[in-house]
Amino acid sequence: MENFSFYSPTYFAFGKDSEKQAGSLIKQFGGSKVLIHYGGGSVVRSGLLDRVKQSLTDAGVPFVELGGVKPNPRSGLVYEGIELCKKEGVDFILAVGGGSTIDSSKAIAAGVVYDGDFWDFYSGKPITKALPVGTVLTIAAAGSEGSPDSVITKEEGMFKRGASGNAIRPKFSILNPALTQTLPAYQTAAGATDIMAHLYERYLTNSKEVEVTDRLIEALLLTMVHETPRVIADPNNYDARANIMWAGMMAHNNSCGVGRSQDWNSHNIEHELSALYDCAHGAGLAVTMPAVFRYVMNHDVMRFAQVAVRVWGCQMDFAHPEVTALAGINAFQNFLISIGMPKNFEELGAKEEDIPKLVEVLCRGDGRNGSISGFVTLNEEDCTKIYQMMV
Amino acid sequence: MENFSFYSPTYFAFGKDSEKQAGSLIKQFGGSKVLIHYGGGSVVRSGLLDRVKQSLTDAGVPFVELGGVKPNPRSGLVYEGIELCKKEGVDFILAVGGGSTIDSSKAIAAGVVYDGDFWDFYSGKPITKALPVGTVLTIAAAGSEGSPDSVITKEEGMFKRGASGNAIRPKFSILNPALTQTLPAYQTAAGATDIMAHLYERYLTNSKEVEVTDRLIEALLLTMVHETPRVIADPNNYDARANIMWAGMMAHNNSCGVGRSQDWNSHNIEHELSALYDCAHGAGLAVTMPAVFRYVMNHDVMRFAQVAVRVWGCQMDFAHPEVTALAGINAFQNFLISIGMPKNFEELGAKEEDIPKLVEVLCRGDGRNGSISGFVTLNEEDCTKIYQMMV
Repeated sequence: MENFSFYSPTYFAFGKDSEKQAGSLIKQFGGSKVLIHYGGGSVVRSGLLDRVKQSLTDAGVPFVELGGVKPNPRSGLVYEGIELCKKEGVDFILAVGGGSTIDSSKAIAAGVVYDGDFWDFYSGKPITKALPVGTVLTIAAAGSEGSPDSVITKEEGMFKRGASGNAIRPKFSILNPALTQTLPAYQTAAGATDIMAHLYERYLTNSKEVEVTDRLIEALLLTMVHETPRVIADPNNYDARANIMWAGMMAHNNSCGVGRSQDWNSHNIEHELSALYDCAHGAGLAVTMPAVFRYVMNHDVMRFAQVAVRVWGCQMDFAHPEVTALAGINAFQNFLISIGMPKNFEELGAKEEDIPKLVEVLCRGDGRNGSISGFVTLNEEDCTKIYQMMV
Repeated sequence: MENFSFYSPTYFAFGKDSEKQAGSLIKQFGGSKVLIHYGGGSVVRSGLLDRVKQSLTDAGVPFVELGGVKPNPRSGLVYEGIELCKKEGVDFILAVGGGSTIDSSKAIAAGVVYDGDFWDFYSGKPITKALPVGTVLTIAAAGSEGSPDSVITKEEGMFKRGASGNAIRPKFSILNPALTQTLPAYQTAAGATDIMAHLYERYLTNSKEVEVTDRLIEALLLTMVHETPRVIADPNNYDARANIMWAGMMAHNNSCGVGRSQDWNSHNIEHELSALYDCAHGAGLAVTMPAVFRYVMNHDVMRFAQVAVRVWGCQMDFAHPEVTALAGINAFQNFLISIGMPKNFEELGAKEEDIPKLVEVLCRGDGRNGSISGFVTLNEEDCTKIYQMMV
């Protein structure tokens, strides 16, 4: 196990009606004027936005609003949010929505207290200062409610890039599983896939002797394997939604990923897909992961065999571990297909002829010099082959 | 799953040489004059105490010292620590040691800023205010490094009681697995047993639909089953020590115990043993848990069968689940015996003739009125039978 530090000071209010605590939690964490940031559509229609506003009003906390966050959130709205906060003297950002809204809120929070262009943080500058952020989560997926990470797409060039820093970890996150019951099956499945990707990206490590985090990651994968089909079958299953929601947070606050190198190649390869085609990130991951895993499997067959046995219930083939390893990858892809996720470029809406462009942006875009690194370092030829495997 | 809140804002510095960060972390968390609280013996002999003092000196942080904490820490030293802190104007407590030292430090931290008797907190008053506490952990066991809990023995009457409150959660905890390599095998095993008890106490729940926390608890139990024999065989196995150390923290910071009722009857029943005989808490638990589990097994046979199958690798007897349930309890006890833990009163140094006294203090002491509650409510007759099963 490698040396590490771990710090996850987010306060979680979990359960039915927990959104009613928004106003009092903002006061508790020092907010005196709030930007409520959200997408639109369902948050408004469901009455959630009104309930949150009422909670702030009841607590005597003034606010301004900025809606319009789209999936794969864009830099344009971030600039708009930063200007609005400066003009209105906002000192606390409340995200009401899913990962996109939270990530956009984090970007605004960092940008408001920074003199330069907020995109600097998405080009590698660590975030050390930001306005405090709170969240009311509506989708179990990104794990942004408990993470120090944010991903934004730069409209100029359509680069999708991440930034990180403990300063943008939410001060509090409100997790009410009932709020996710109205999510369509496709988005529910895409969210579950994203959660499983956060687990696999941590599982694929080159660190040795990491039994405790291996076991914790497997525990969360097993939970997803058990609970996801239940919510696909019955969207109103509160308890299955609750198990997925806590698994989604634990998958990405890094308590299960400490002390080990991590992969993140699947995320990087997928980001170019959702940036170009505006597909759901989870759907892109469902197509990307099996291809990446088959391509890199021989780098550590026993690791893939381990997850095959412990999570997917495969029998270990002691004479041919690669058989077991591959069976586990196939079981994972079959699971993703069974919950309604796409299996190839066509189902995702991606095009084979775009592969050179995808590889160019992936391996050369925004300062990269010909490869991406993780569990295995992948150059342009590798990435081309992986995209071709998805066709 | 039940509604809950979860808040674990402790900063963890984990790995080799991490104790060198003590001084800078104290400054970061606002300490300007420190009480270094410790036991004695090994912390002094190993040079750890000197290294920690050097770190404080290097950071320009003045300190006073109070050693002498014993296992099953006593109220007398807590009163002494409170007086010393008041006299010296201490504003930060640094615990250097195991759970006993940390618990004693937490009690002092709460007592310094309280006008009444600190024992009020151990009689049920919630702790809402305390001096900040940091820790340098030397034993993987109690989980006190990441928990809001503290257990102290009142010398008058030898009551062993717990107190709790987020105010006494450590601001930071330094976890260097190498510091645990000098621990004798017996204490290592007792620590492992305590960690497994924290997991079983959370596992035994009456809450339904708690798959995610079930799986996380099982993951940590599986880690303990795998790693504990490795450190017993080779005390210098750093990696096995590291896996146990993180498992010990995760077992008790409650991230794996949220949203569910918990048991804690085994802890309560054991506390009277270690209070009376001054045995190692973990050793007492090794004798207590199998008896308690056999006594309450029929309350939820399927729960005991589940842990038997998932953790102990027992085959499920679908026609007779109680056979599987019992096989799992037996496997657990055999495991505890194999790592050197006692199996009965005699090996623990307890006496059958003391049972009436043990039951009296357990069920009637310090305000209790004839029973203890948890997974199952146990009255004096139940507790008598359970103690008799340990003979």
